[in-house]
Amino acid sequence: MSGSGSFQRVAIIGLGLLGGSLGLALREHLPAVATTGYDRDPATRQRAAERGLVGAVCETAAEAVAEADLVVLCVPVGAMAEAARDIAHALPAGAIISDVGSSKRSVQKALAEALPDHICIPAHPVAGTEQSGPEAGFASLFEGRWCILTPPEGAPAEATDRLSSLWQTLGAKVEIMDADHHDLVLAVTSHIPHLIAYTIVGTASDMEDVTRSEVIKYSAGGFRDFTRIAASDPVMWRDVFLNNRDAVLEMLGRFTEDLTALQRAIRSGDGETLHDLFSRTRAIRRSIIDEGQDDASPDFGRDH
Amino acid sequence: MSGSGSFQRVAIIGLGLLGGSLGLALREHLPAVATTGYDRDPATRQRAAERGLVGAVCETAAEAVAEADLVVLCVPVGAMAEAARDIAHALPAGAIISDVGSSKRSVQKALAEALPDHICIPAHPVAGTEQSGPEAGFASLFEGRWCILTPPEGAPAEATDRLSSLWQTLGAKVEIMDADHHDLVLAVTSHIPHLIAYTIVGTASDMEDVTRSEVIKYSAGGFRDFTRIAASDPVMWRDVFLNNRDAVLEMLGRFTEDLTALQRAIRSGDGETLHDLFSRTRAIRRSIIDEGQDDASPDFGRDH
Repeated sequence: MSGSGSFQRVAIIGLGLLGGSLGLALREHLPAVATTGYDRDPATRQRAAERGLVGAVCETAAEAVAEADLVVLCVPVGAMAEAARDIAHALPAGAIISDVGSSKRSVQKALAEALPDHICIPAHPVAGTEQSGPEAGFASLFEGRWCILTPPEGAPAEATDRLSSLWQTLGAKVEIMDADHHDLVLAVTSHIPHLIAYTIVGTASDMEDVTRSEVIKYSAGGFRDFTRIAASDPVMWRDVFLNNRDAVLEMLGRFTEDLTALQRAIRSGDGETLHDLFSRTRAIRRSIIDEGQDDASPDFGRDH
Repeated sequence: MSGSGSFQRVAIIGLGLLGGSLGLALREHLPAVATTGYDRDPATRQRAAERGLVGAVCETAAEAVAEADLVVLCVPVGAMAEAARDIAHALPAGAIISDVGSSKRSVQKALAEALPDHICIPAHPVAGTEQSGPEAGFASLFEGRWCILTPPEGAPAEATDRLSSLWQTLGAKVEIMDADHHDLVLAVTSHIPHLIAYTIVGTASDMEDVTRSEVIKYSAGGFRDFTRIAASDPVMWRDVFLNNRDAVLEMLGRFTEDLTALQRAIRSGDGETLHDLFSRTRAIRRSIIDEGQDDASPDFGRDH
């Protein structure tokens, strides 16, 4: 990462888990890059300054981007359009705009509309935890994780290359794909898992014949895993479902079909269908571990 | 754990994750108790002997139980009836029979039919990992976890007390409840979570427009959590669904209703309904951590 291709001044708009982790990762891997940041919540700005998430926390988004050659929007996907409009008048002419949102078609459209004169390369680092806010970020969040770039048609390859290099320097692996394909893939690897986790935790909370205390006590039977995902940021996830509606509904339809088939197998006592599926699903876990996308320790390495 | 109430000789039938962990926990916490064990798989018996999961690995179940005052069946719930019949002729008159199965009504019935002259106190330690077999067990598996006993009507309180004490000595917390209520509670805290995890992993494996390689690469978005549960033992889980059919179908009906309501909210762009649920579900996670049933570290403490 040196020479004319690298960024000198990166502005981060939104200083929660992703924005904060990006700032810390830049400081660790590229200490020469100047970072500025802004968050619309004053308390978050203050905490971000205390933790040193970026070199300078600014009082306005316009101030943060005024000298940037890369701006990364780290706000919920439903807030991208407004965040882009807020900086439009203050952006340097050559600045590249990117983001970290979990859906890409709607973000690509929002950025193109708000910033027609700028190069916008949407991005999605597939990384995170269930925590959020300015306390949650850490520099190694992106290490070994994939970052998907979805450059719109006609975007200059050089801009995509520069952004790819940056994410690789922060420890990520980079893949380029079409925004629509991104939205379909992430619907199944991220959005539907979150939706069904939120659902089962809600179902368990609302029962009358099983108490909440019982749900908590016996959660080690599997339920507790789902509560981690269902503790994720509500605004971020509301926006994901509203902004990736078509792909989510498509994948949800397939999931429901498959669940209905298992329901029928249980009702009719068809153990063979159950055993066949339960045997097939082990292989994917092994591949995920083999490719370094999860810990091989039993129970995620929880302390027993 | 001393005096006339304690067990002197414990026989463990089935030397997988649960049986092996029970043997190791007994050795650690109650070294004076003699343990014997049997598994119908010769390779498991050999490995169990090498790891010292029990004091003596026997060649038949009858031999293992011949002098026991407690026998714990650690086999899939669908194999309980046969395991009980296998030992019926060899059981000492005063021996208490228990188990570790994940459904309790069907096990209670199977034990009562196979062993009408013995005291049977079914039990379910709500603990485990996604691994199985004689390599998987470890002594601390039950520490801080709940063990549910479901003594049938008329069972002597003294037998239940002795079994409670044993589990508490191994580090577990004990709750007594009716078998039907157990089956309803575990349907929601364990069986439905496993069913939907198996389903989504199956759905993701079968797609044509998203490759398996993509599913694996981008699994850190949430999917990988589900693959852990979906790597659990296929025979064990087939038997759970066949043996707790009514409660599973009841809970699955509620889950599906709730999921359909969210589907409608996504389709109609009703962000308020989504945000309301996503905010409520955070509280349960906090309670589970506060009560020591999960790790407070982000991402289960995975190494980042």
